[in-house]
Amino acid sequence: MNFLEEKIMEDGKINPGNVLKVDNFLNHQIDIDIMRQIAYEFKRRFKGKEVNKVLTIEASGIAIATMLADLYDVPVVFAKKSQTVNSTDDKYVGQAYSFTHKQMNNVFVSRPYLSASDKVLIVDDFLADGEAASALIDIVRQAGGTVTGIGIAIEKGQQKGGKKLREAGFHVESIAIIDDMDYETQNITFRH
Amino acid sequence: MNFLEEKIMEDGKINPGNVLKVDNFLNHQIDIDIMRQIAYEFKRRFKGKEVNKVLTIEASGIAIATMLADLYDVPVVFAKKSQTVNSTDDKYVGQAYSFTHKQMNNVFVSRPYLSASDKVLIVDDFLADGEAASALIDIVRQAGGTVTGIGIAIEKGQQKGGKKLREAGFHVESIAIIDDMDYETQNITFRH
Repeated sequence: MNFLEEKIMEDGKINPGNVLKVDNFLNHQIDIDIMRQIAYEFKRRFKGKEVNKVLTIEASGIAIATMLADLYDVPVVFAKKSQTVNSTDDKYVGQAYSFTHKQMNNVFVSRPYLSASDKVLIVDDFLADGEAASALIDIVRQAGGTVTGIGIAIEKGQQKGGKKLREAGFHVESIAIIDDMDYETQNITFRH
Repeated sequence: MNFLEEKIMEDGKINPGNVLKVDNFLNHQIDIDIMRQIAYEFKRRFKGKEVNKVLTIEASGIAIATMLADLYDVPVVFAKKSQTVNSTDDKYVGQAYSFTHKQMNNVFVSRPYLSASDKVLIVDDFLADGEAASALIDIVRQAGGTVTGIGIAIEKGQQKGGKKLREAGFHVESIAIIDDMDYETQNITFRH
């Protein structure tokens, strides 16, 4: 098992309905050692790829994106889930269904922050049905930029997002891919 | 002028209604050099203070909190603005009025992630009326923990948050305090 799989087995919890709860180290409380190691692992897996921007979606992707951008020494852009009164810029708009909040969400990136020259590494904490990733890809395309790769901490291998993105030709790297998990036994099967 | 004041003068923009737009380096696109320097500046200003957790609120505080937690080698906790289906934990609840979204928001921290032994450094990108900071302080108190200090990137000095928190005895460090700004001239007066 790699470091993230071990951490999931140690500190993750399977809740009813195949919900993996990792908010004690990944998306509510953040274990900074794990976050650092996730960033270094992405850097290694995307070695040789050109990256001049790291793109994620608020909120829990921001910590991973920030650590990774620190390694690449490039800016982060995080897509927003609501329009704020502070920005009058024109925006790229992507659409993503949130299974967590059970609703369709628009996600926004202000036009000045993505352009045709951008080589974008998309990162997020989770990949399930690929809704958020697809919205971000769509936004990069609207800007005329290039998606260099997609870095995911935890992929839910039983859901269709990873397959869909890989079949579409994207370089997807997921540090832990869960192929099966069981609430009764709290057992998790990782893909290797 | 310090590094952040210079950056604000260079890249910030004053919109009508005294709205300072810094989303090209602070809260939508993130300039990683500035973020690093903000973290080091907080570390210097809170030198000697005991910190075992960095607390912020989603979303734009997360980048600052992550960089700072990396320096302190402690966990980040970020308060959430909505309850998610993934967490069945009991929660601390604070209340904050959002001037950006013009509504009262509950903010949540799951109980396991703050305790009476915690020495908490609260950080955020902006301090205006102190609504978010007060909600976070309230949550730390509910947990029985100690607020070690409050680190703010940009304080709007004309609004009451900073005064209120300092009068209440908190150690507040704001890297840039704006005492006046003018849409017509795009001029900004910093407090020194």
